[in-house]
Amino acid sequence: MQNRQIVLAQRPLGMIDETTTSLVTSERPTCADGEALVKVGILSIDPTIRTWMNDAPGYLPPISLGDPVRSGGAGVVVESRSSRYRVGDIVFGMTNWQEWAIASETNRFNVVPTGMGLDLATVMNVLGTTGLTAFFGLMEVGQFKTGDVVLVSGAAGATGSVVGQIARAKGAAKVVGIAGGAQKCAEVVQEYGFDECLDYHQPGLSRSIHRACPAGVDVYFDNVGGEILDAALANIAMHARIVLCGAISQYNAVEKPSGVANTSMMIMRRGRMQGFIVFDFAQRYAEAQLELAAMVLDGTVAHREHLVHGLEQAPAALNLLFTGGNHGKTLVVVDASVQLV
Amino acid sequence: MQNRQIVLAQRPLGMIDETTTSLVTSERPTCADGEALVKVGILSIDPTIRTWMNDAPGYLPPISLGDPVRSGGAGVVVESRSSRYRVGDIVFGMTNWQEWAIASETNRFNVVPTGMGLDLATVMNVLGTTGLTAFFGLMEVGQFKTGDVVLVSGAAGATGSVVGQIARAKGAAKVVGIAGGAQKCAEVVQEYGFDECLDYHQPGLSRSIHRACPAGVDVYFDNVGGEILDAALANIAMHARIVLCGAISQYNAVEKPSGVANTSMMIMRRGRMQGFIVFDFAQRYAEAQLELAAMVLDGTVAHREHLVHGLEQAPAALNLLFTGGNHGKTLVVVDASVQLV
Repeated sequence: MQNRQIVLAQRPLGMIDETTTSLVTSERPTCADGEALVKVGILSIDPTIRTWMNDAPGYLPPISLGDPVRSGGAGVVVESRSSRYRVGDIVFGMTNWQEWAIASETNRFNVVPTGMGLDLATVMNVLGTTGLTAFFGLMEVGQFKTGDVVLVSGAAGATGSVVGQIARAKGAAKVVGIAGGAQKCAEVVQEYGFDECLDYHQPGLSRSIHRACPAGVDVYFDNVGGEILDAALANIAMHARIVLCGAISQYNAVEKPSGVANTSMMIMRRGRMQGFIVFDFAQRYAEAQLELAAMVLDGTVAHREHLVHGLEQAPAALNLLFTGGNHGKTLVVVDASVQLV
Repeated sequence: MQNRQIVLAQRPLGMIDETTTSLVTSERPTCADGEALVKVGILSIDPTIRTWMNDAPGYLPPISLGDPVRSGGAGVVVESRSSRYRVGDIVFGMTNWQEWAIASETNRFNVVPTGMGLDLATVMNVLGTTGLTAFFGLMEVGQFKTGDVVLVSGAAGATGSVVGQIARAKGAAKVVGIAGGAQKCAEVVQEYGFDECLDYHQPGLSRSIHRACPAGVDVYFDNVGGEILDAALANIAMHARIVLCGAISQYNAVEKPSGVANTSMMIMRRGRMQGFIVFDFAQRYAEAQLELAAMVLDGTVAHREHLVHGLEQAPAALNLLFTGGNHGKTLVVVDASVQLV
């Protein structure tokens, strides 16, 4: 009746290491009235987890030292004292890095619909916060419209790859990715169907963007921040929309990150830059999930999951996001028996 | 029958100097069918003129070498072969730095309404592009609403001072300015009625903004760019609107300007940053001018004009904008006899 947890032991400076987290064993939680006990099956490993480890203001409070690392995940309800959850339901929400979680009125989980013919890893990727971020970022924040030229950084990543594929499916004039290295760029084009992918390891990214998008970029979906955002800004079209989704280049930064100098392009081209968090669209997840599920099932959206096995591997899995060592949406399998039927 | 002109002789690096422009005398232009001859009375000296001198892409093409310096201005119609202009009309538009201009179908001028009891300098300030920029930037781009906390850089300047006064008149919760030096800061509070003004010459601007706006800034109106924009971004409230109007700190920059590092605040606070040019609202000038005229006449908007006399002083007047040597809206009087009656 134990609960293994990975807790935050010390706030990291730069990349996390073995001093950042500890594996501890506590008692398995029990559920009070209105709560349900969830056996965690799988964890969603997202760059934003790294930002929660800092003692800095964010869109959620920092993780407290000694608390399990905050994380999305999915599991199965094994006991319920809530009318919201039934035993056997597969639910997703904030499981955190542990084997057992409590779903309650304040820590709400959503029930994953069954019978779609999709496995849990796919659901956690395309129908989870990753795919929802891509969908709402492109369509709502980016106000995508048919004929737009779309540029996406982190294009080989879980969110970026879905952004480009939605844009392609909805009639973009051109979909251009930015990724690190020839192999990732090839994957973005061959696997995810982008028209072109630019390697930011090569010099002259701004000129490369100009060659790929000579009439300018209508929607730039930014997962990276810093110099890549600056290169994109130099190439925006009139009335461009810049979607700030993440700034992965800065999450491990020890020094003040390099700034964005081309803000005056926003004036000349009447650009609009807007930040968002997918939680802002929580009331509308269902509509997007239906559309995303259809796009997965009919093959419009290709996807790839990078499965890492074992709760104790979660910290290493997080670092993969920053070293580029992952290949698709990174998920940690805590208990492989938790599956959609 | 001559036309004195100040032409662009050489593209400047940094501040303009005596090698940048030349005073030349050419023949007074004559008007063809559909055109009118305008005797220039007054020039509007705006920071954006400096950007047009660079051989760089902008919202208008660069000024060609040998051409008169592009500039807004006003004058009186002395001859007309157009149904659009009547002899005696006071008109404003792109006069450029010269004594005589041609109004045509492609270089359109607007007729200044008479009988408002406002002098031409006031009209060129509050009812000209300066006041219109303040109005549309705050109300349309900034989506100002009653109860907003408004922060304005360049607050002692022609545009910034009007932004703050409109915000105050329309029910801002607090109006905070940023200006350079104690004297300008005092003027912003005493003359323009801001609640507070922060001196960016003092260290710790970001902390000062935090003290002045502890719940965060709802609308930041940026005339400056660079480090001041960065300090403002560090202090935005949820769903803040950042209005990019100008980047005067960068117009004379020889090296790549310092960048904006706090873009991830835009994600955490779901901020929206948008650039604009007042020309985008040209179809709606009249409605704004009526409202601005009313606010001048009833004393809601205080204003100050810095008059420089003589066409040949135009280059020196432009530099005043960057040295802070001006005091209010800078205008060059080319011919003092041109007046509204």
